[in-house]
Amino acid sequence: MKRIYIDHNATTPVHPEVLREMLPFLKENFGNPSSIHWFGQQAHNTLENAREQVASLFNAETAEIFFTSGGTESDNLAIKGAVSALRQDCSHIVTSQIEHHAVLNTCKYLEEGLKVTYLPVDKYGIVKLGELEKTITANTILVTIMFANNETGAIQPIEDICKIIQSVNNERSKISRPNVVFHTDAVQAVGKLPIDLKQLEVDLLSLSAHKINGPKGIGALYIRKGTKMQPLLHGGHHEKNMRAGTENIPGIVALGKACEIAKKTLEKEAKHLAKLRNKLWKGISEKIEHVNLNGLPEKCLPNTLNVSFEFIEGESMLLNLDLKGIAASAGSACTSGSMEPSHVLSAMGVDPVKAQGSLRFSLGLNNTEEEIDYIVETLPGIVKKLRAMSPIYKNKKK
Amino acid sequence: MKRIYIDHNATTPVHPEVLREMLPFLKENFGNPSSIHWFGQQAHNTLENAREQVASLFNAETAEIFFTSGGTESDNLAIKGAVSALRQDCSHIVTSQIEHHAVLNTCKYLEEGLKVTYLPVDKYGIVKLGELEKTITANTILVTIMFANNETGAIQPIEDICKIIQSVNNERSKISRPNVVFHTDAVQAVGKLPIDLKQLEVDLLSLSAHKINGPKGIGALYIRKGTKMQPLLHGGHHEKNMRAGTENIPGIVALGKACEIAKKTLEKEAKHLAKLRNKLWKGISEKIEHVNLNGLPEKCLPNTLNVSFEFIEGESMLLNLDLKGIAASAGSACTSGSMEPSHVLSAMGVDPVKAQGSLRFSLGLNNTEEEIDYIVETLPGIVKKLRAMSPIYKNKKK
Repeated sequence: MKRIYIDHNATTPVHPEVLREMLPFLKENFGNPSSIHWFGQQAHNTLENAREQVASLFNAETAEIFFTSGGTESDNLAIKGAVSALRQDCSHIVTSQIEHHAVLNTCKYLEEGLKVTYLPVDKYGIVKLGELEKTITANTILVTIMFANNETGAIQPIEDICKIIQSVNNERSKISRPNVVFHTDAVQAVGKLPIDLKQLEVDLLSLSAHKINGPKGIGALYIRKGTKMQPLLHGGHHEKNMRAGTENIPGIVALGKACEIAKKTLEKEAKHLAKLRNKLWKGISEKIEHVNLNGLPEKCLPNTLNVSFEFIEGESMLLNLDLKGIAASAGSACTSGSMEPSHVLSAMGVDPVKAQGSLRFSLGLNNTEEEIDYIVETLPGIVKKLRAMSPIYKNKKK
Repeated sequence: MKRIYIDHNATTPVHPEVLREMLPFLKENFGNPSSIHWFGQQAHNTLENAREQVASLFNAETAEIFFTSGGTESDNLAIKGAVSALRQDCSHIVTSQIEHHAVLNTCKYLEEGLKVTYLPVDKYGIVKLGELEKTITANTILVTIMFANNETGAIQPIEDICKIIQSVNNERSKISRPNVVFHTDAVQAVGKLPIDLKQLEVDLLSLSAHKINGPKGIGALYIRKGTKMQPLLHGGHHEKNMRAGTENIPGIVALGKACEIAKKTLEKEAKHLAKLRNKLWKGISEKIEHVNLNGLPEKCLPNTLNVSFEFIEGESMLLNLDLKGIAASAGSACTSGSMEPSHVLSAMGVDPVKAQGSLRFSLGLNNTEEEIDYIVETLPGIVKKLRAMSPIYKNKKK
């Protein structure tokens, strides 16, 4: 059976050029960059070249890129590392209700010792800026708000958030108080939206290779020069004492290459994916009744479509789609298997029953018009079959 | 130039069979094991198969293996995770002076809130057992002592340490006090020594793929069933809530395969490497005067040889060896570049000047008799040249 993968927000295939670039480092160029001999120096040079490639995607300085094992570690390092460096009595951090669990559960863990505010979002899944302004106090040390949501694709107003924090920090500088640090989990935004860290006053930014056609097990944290941070992993002097552990050179090379490709293709790819995504939504909304789009297309990642199909369980749809060779998801992969409705859709005020019937389609490398056609042809039959088994739907029709 | 790599304690090449096994997961089988569709389920099955392969090398239960990003993370998780779970007022942990920095610096970081004892070693680099017995108090919650040292290869008396802790725990059980937890950093021992965790009462054991012909960026922590632990990375429910983050499937597959190969070849390979190592030492000690073996061959990893060459700087030797195509090391890779004498040799009481002139040769996959011959032929000339430039050596000769 031909299989259609339309779940790129969960993970992506490794780009063939990325694989080609990393392979020598799984073969003959296997040195440890800390070694002073030839093998080590080859690895060391490669490491710094990849750091440059990553920095370049964000218009950042090479020295501001720190490699980690992935998005979750980057988020943990950003939040715990900043909190360790800045914490005082009564410290306060601000996040949102729609963060990835790598941020949410890290904040929850920190609740033991400090106050955490979880900002609400509007019905389109966008953080309420007014609430952010109101919530920052003299005790606030960190704000962490994602760049774009993994489930709905909702792009957050990062520029406006930066301005709010900047204005707080301007006041603070007059009385010599430390700045509020701003972290953004950009795992889903990287490679899909242009991000210029010379323009945006972001202090910490998390990214992951496997969401941008790189391999799993490698990511990075951007740390703006001068940001006070403590490491999470202790050991050798790797990554300027910010992240101990022998560098994952093949992974780092791959992340570098994936960033280089993203930089080149981002604009064109975003247009292409948005076109396919819009075609998919058009097909679904024309052919199936009782469907709702979760989010605003104009404030959404170009590749993401989150749709509620009323009177159906999302999991049943997924299994039926899978039988037809279509791989999509309900909510995020990291919470799949749990029967709770999506915390993101709940925060948007989506009715829990509708939330249970939501699917996320996330497009990426190699998805084609033909695949979209196939999905649009296949979905109505599955929806019809499942609704026929739904007592609520039958009652509704009466 | 033909290059000889004799620095396998720093890192190892990926075994061709390991690479072959992991490649499909960098290509077509790229699913996220948390996804419920076909791609996800393929990845999920693979993950559990690899866990079984790792468990099997140690005669452990599959449910006791938790994947991490490498040895450093495993050590951090073991120590900080156990301390988080067990910490009380006045808690005390015990380690040794010769640990890898992933353990040493983690313990040092914890000194802020608890007491740490760094056990001394004898002149062969073996932890003094009598000191361990004396140091454990009612407040001791954790003992962390490495299985074998990365710089000298010195094998630690793990079985005896287990017995001492077991006897403490037997007494504690009578008064319903929590057990002392025993962690061992086995990063250098795995694949070189047989380890049976049904026989040894180890609670936590760290390992890393890239030291056993697997790739960098992947490791595991063995956590004995029932051991109280807290996670280090918060986020999704991966690894039974013990380690959040999308699983590095290609890396995990590779670690599984590397463990499977190690299990099959360990005994034969250990004999082969010991033979080469002994030949190297015989050649060096016969051809070069004023050399000292750091360690006891009968209590040493089969692949490791640490030698002090008097009147010479280790770094100068390394650079000269490198020019002749030989990649060895002085101390551990993780501390190379620092001009301080090795903390391991210092703890053994090696004179600082002699310690500065120490080299580590660590053998592995593909090293041959011919390579050893070449090294034995090449070394004397380099030593002679460097000693000729040494004022201390000239004075000595007078």
